[in-house]
Amino acid sequence: MSGSPLLNELIEALRCLPGVGAKTAQRMAFHVLERDRGGASRLADKLAAAVERIGNSKRCRTFSEEAVCTLCANPARDAQLLCVVETPVDQLAIEQATGFRGHYFVLLGRLSPLDGLGPRELGLDLLAARLAEGQVRELIVATNPTVEGEATAHMLSQLARQAGVRATRLAHGVPLGGELEFIDRGTLAHAFGGRLSI
Amino acid sequence: MSGSPLLNELIEALRCLPGVGAKTAQRMAFHVLERDRGGASRLADKLAAAVERIGNSKRCRTFSEEAVCTLCANPARDAQLLCVVETPVDQLAIEQATGFRGHYFVLLGRLSPLDGLGPRELGLDLLAARLAEGQVRELIVATNPTVEGEATAHMLSQLARQAGVRATRLAHGVPLGGELEFIDRGTLAHAFGGRLSI
Repeated sequence: MSGSPLLNELIEALRCLPGVGAKTAQRMAFHVLERDRGGASRLADKLAAAVERIGNSKRCRTFSEEAVCTLCANPARDAQLLCVVETPVDQLAIEQATGFRGHYFVLLGRLSPLDGLGPRELGLDLLAARLAEGQVRELIVATNPTVEGEATAHMLSQLARQAGVRATRLAHGVPLGGELEFIDRGTLAHAFGGRLSI
Repeated sequence: MSGSPLLNELIEALRCLPGVGAKTAQRMAFHVLERDRGGASRLADKLAAAVERIGNSKRCRTFSEEAVCTLCANPARDAQLLCVVETPVDQLAIEQATGFRGHYFVLLGRLSPLDGLGPRELGLDLLAARLAEGQVRELIVATNPTVEGEATAHMLSQLARQAGVRATRLAHGVPLGGELEFIDRGTLAHAFGGRLSI
C-alpha cells in the first residue's frame, strides 16, 4: 500500500475496467498522476456525464444521451434498410467495417429463456411496430453465429415474414486470411455449400 | 462512430490511460455502461479527487493528499532507516516486496542534466536537511541500475558521507529463477565479484 489512502482508492477503482488487474491499475494511477492530470480530469468528467446521461435510444435501443440517437435522427441514412444486432458493440463494428448507410436496431441481448431474455426483453414489440410502419424493405439479421444467436435470427426472420419484409443474413464462410486447414468443419461446410461462381 | 457523441468522447478520454488504444477504450466504455455503472461513477469520483487533492508529501516527496504522507506520519516505522528511490512506483514496489519498515525519500527523477534535472530538482537540499536532523543511521540507496541511476547513487553516497551517515546499496546479482546462460555480462560479473560464503 502506498502512503496515500486516496491513491490506493483510485487504484482499486480503476479495476472496474475490463482487463485491468492490480498491477495495471497501479501503472495507470501513477501514470496519470505523474504525466497526464489534464487527461485524468477529462476522463473523470466524461465518465460521470456518461453514467448520468447515457441511456438507450427509444427508436433503436442503442446507447444514446438523447431520446433518439444521432444515427436514427440522421435524415441522410437509408430508412429502407434495418440491421438488427445484439449489442451496441456489434453495431459499432458494422459501422466501422462496412459502408452500411441504413438504420440499426439493437436487441441488447439474444434469445435466452434461461437468463430471462425473451421477445419482450429484446424489444421485439418495438421492432414489429417499426416494421409495421412500412418504410423498411430489408431486415438485415446480424446476430452472432452462436446457438442463441441463430435462434434469435430464426425468430427475427419470422417477424419479417409476418410484416412482409425481406430478411437477409450475414454470409457465413471462410474468413479473409484464414487457411482452410485450420478452419472448423461447420464453417467450411457452410462456405462449401454457399460457393459462388467466379 | 457510435450514435452517441458523449460515448465517443468517453472512448477518446479513456485513451489517456497507458496501454489503452482505440479498441480497448471502446471495450472499456461499453463494458462499464452495460455492466458496471456503479464502478464507473466511483472511478470518476476517485479520479477527480486524486487529480485535485494528491500532491507531494513535504517530508518524503511521494504522492500524498496530506502535507505529510501516512508512511512518514506513522510512528511505528523506524526513523533510523531512510530508503531513497527515484519514483513513487519504486517505493510501492519495495513496500510490497520487502519487509522494510523504515522511511522513504522520493527523488521524483534521477540526475539528468540534459533534462534539466539537477540536485535542486531532486530535492537533495531537503534530503540533506533530513540527514542533518541526526535521526537517520542508514541511507539505503535504491536508485535504478542505469547510468543515470548510478550517477545519482554516487551523489547520494557523498551526501551521506558528509552527514556521517552509513550509505548502502541494493545488491546486484543473479535474479531468482534466472539462468546463468542468459544473464548479461555486467550482472554476471557483479554476481561473481560479490559472491558470498554458504
